[in-house]
Amino acid sequence: MLIVKKFGGSSVANPERIFNVARRCIEDYNAGNDVVVVLSAMGDTTDDLIALAKKINPNPQKREMDMLMSTGEQISVALMSMAMNALGVRSISLNAFQVAMHTTSAYGSARLKRIDSERIRRELDDRKIVLVTGFQGVNKYDDVTTLGRGGSDTTAVAIAAALHADACEIYTDVDGVYTCDPRVVPNARKLKEITYDEMLDLATLGAGVLHNRCVELARKYGVEIVVRSSLNNSEGTIVKEVTKVERMLVSGVALDKDADRISLIGLQNQPGVAFKVFDLLAKANINIDVILQSIGRDETKDISFTLPDDRVDDAVEILNANKERLKFDKLDVEKDIVKLSIVGSGMMSNPGVAAKMFEALYNANINLNMICTSEIRVTVLIDAKDAQRAAQAVHDAFGLED
Amino acid sequence: MLIVKKFGGSSVANPERIFNVARRCIEDYNAGNDVVVVLSAMGDTTDDLIALAKKINPNPQKREMDMLMSTGEQISVALMSMAMNALGVRSISLNAFQVAMHTTSAYGSARLKRIDSERIRRELDDRKIVLVTGFQGVNKYDDVTTLGRGGSDTTAVAIAAALHADACEIYTDVDGVYTCDPRVVPNARKLKEITYDEMLDLATLGAGVLHNRCVELARKYGVEIVVRSSLNNSEGTIVKEVTKVERMLVSGVALDKDADRISLIGLQNQPGVAFKVFDLLAKANINIDVILQSIGRDETKDISFTLPDDRVDDAVEILNANKERLKFDKLDVEKDIVKLSIVGSGMMSNPGVAAKMFEALYNANINLNMICTSEIRVTVLIDAKDAQRAAQAVHDAFGLED
Repeated sequence: MLIVKKFGGSSVANPERIFNVARRCIEDYNAGNDVVVVLSAMGDTTDDLIALAKKINPNPQKREMDMLMSTGEQISVALMSMAMNALGVRSISLNAFQVAMHTTSAYGSARLKRIDSERIRRELDDRKIVLVTGFQGVNKYDDVTTLGRGGSDTTAVAIAAALHADACEIYTDVDGVYTCDPRVVPNARKLKEITYDEMLDLATLGAGVLHNRCVELARKYGVEIVVRSSLNNSEGTIVKEVTKVERMLVSGVALDKDADRISLIGLQNQPGVAFKVFDLLAKANINIDVILQSIGRDETKDISFTLPDDRVDDAVEILNANKERLKFDKLDVEKDIVKLSIVGSGMMSNPGVAAKMFEALYNANINLNMICTSEIRVTVLIDAKDAQRAAQAVHDAFGLED
Repeated sequence: MLIVKKFGGSSVANPERIFNVARRCIEDYNAGNDVVVVLSAMGDTTDDLIALAKKINPNPQKREMDMLMSTGEQISVALMSMAMNALGVRSISLNAFQVAMHTTSAYGSARLKRIDSERIRRELDDRKIVLVTGFQGVNKYDDVTTLGRGGSDTTAVAIAAALHADACEIYTDVDGVYTCDPRVVPNARKLKEITYDEMLDLATLGAGVLHNRCVELARKYGVEIVVRSSLNNSEGTIVKEVTKVERMLVSGVALDKDADRISLIGLQNQPGVAFKVFDLLAKANINIDVILQSIGRDETKDISFTLPDDRVDDAVEILNANKERLKFDKLDVEKDIVKLSIVGSGMMSNPGVAAKMFEALYNANINLNMICTSEIRVTVLIDAKDAQRAAQAVHDAFGLED
């Protein structure tokens, strides 16, 4: 079997942990498998390098940041190879140049294009464990790029796809995907399986286990991902195309605490209003999440939207600066809110799921600020103070603890 | 003019020093020159990485050590580019893959074979300062190598040769090559010029300004090196083929404190004895420096040799373990000795230089343990306690202070 395993920065933060990871990989190797290991930079290395760069230039060139940052993973793979050597097992470290990890040119947020798997194959055929730097690539100019957030997970999935691996295991600090965050809903249950689409919605909505880029790539190439804990041996959650014959109605409850809401009240009820608002924000590189526009009444309409809380002040400033042009009466900001969502691919063929969620929230006396649905999810905005109670109520209503 | 400048680790040890180097390079750039800068790893980075590796594996694979170590220079060049950017000047960092710095395969002590100067040229044509990682290369397996001691100096000379640079400036913590170490002989004088051969002998004998590999490469390709201080603007010393019509009799006095002496007394006076001794030591990778074999008397002869003091204990152990085979009476070790040498290309055509040195040492009442000469140098072994007095006496005798 060919297994790709990915470990994050905290799993290789010090020599002791490096040896723990080495032993785990060697177990698979000794069982006769081909093993490729993708690693992130050790613990705080990335933050330390960023801090050093900022001391020299508060606004460094993106190309040079990538050149700088990519050293972190190279240190990890070299040290891991030394650990495996100390344990008597042959291994080899490879960086993005050596793997020929081709990406687009966008420094800091490059996307993978193509991997020449030839070198990895050759080293595997030579019965070595192959250690690959995550998060980094090389663009058409022969320059170093990095993949941005979730980059190492994406590297692992891409390698698994290129090598037609039998398994792609992503090791995290949780031991799988849960029906809800166990810190919020104590009886949340670990899922054995989940579909790509469900995982994508959970990832986007703040479940925070896998980055959605990595899940999208896995779906595209049909790579089955296993999310497992780096701290114990429990089985984890498998992310794949179809989980069972009968899809689950609701597979999980996600809570996103990073969202704030802005409402523009009393906009003119005419075409082009929404375009003007969101074009302004897009130009400032502000990502908008849920958008809700009221049905126009009389001469005016309202637009509300959520966005990450670290960009709210920027957005408010831009909108107020353009108040004359946009012609709104009032701008309203709500920071003490959270986004609560239920996700499940079974929803598509089961009407009444949203109603059941609203009923549970009504029974718990929780007010809904905003509602937004897609084919496989229902999202509501509620007051932050109600978050825990609301998540528990919805989790109970759908019987997810079983 | 095309100028290659090389700065060592202490010159880029912190953001302040990085900016100092950046400003120096920008001066040349703003004067209309093409500027290539070769950098070593920042300050203690290399030592820190070695310490980290040793924690994981006391005997790490050389290939992986090179993979690890090469990150140090990559950090330096990326940060330097950010500093230049902060100062408003365009620059680009390049690592060994990007420069196509081809070396032999020997990890940890690779030798440069070929540089594809195309990428550097292109960036220079684009009016960028080009920042190149010193000390590292890529071998035919597409693996990272390092060049060993003096590696970054060698990188600089190799790039200067490949680009047919007009100048190759090596910045050090001294401001040139002196007639002797100024800490030993206070009135030592800085040389304006010195030949490659003289510099080679001075380097080998412990003057410690330039590594001999770099000087050899410079001689081979006729690259003029300027040794300058990174701390001030003084003119430095030029190392080149012919310095003046009349060559200097003696250009400098070198003192090497790292040497120890081993003597094997009473070896059999027959062929093959020296071979057996030095073959044993070579197999243990112990470098021997000066060798002196006495003229055979009766049935026996003696062999003495010097070697670096960190390998003496190994050598003694090996020799004693083979005492039966080598058939010597006694092994003698002398650790409190130093090697004092005079170097000068004018010596070749001037008999009596050695005698003048011996006279000066005799007048100063200094005992000579061993003598060894080549065409352009005379080396004596003396007691460590006499080192300073001896160096001063010889320096005075040849009038080097003028």
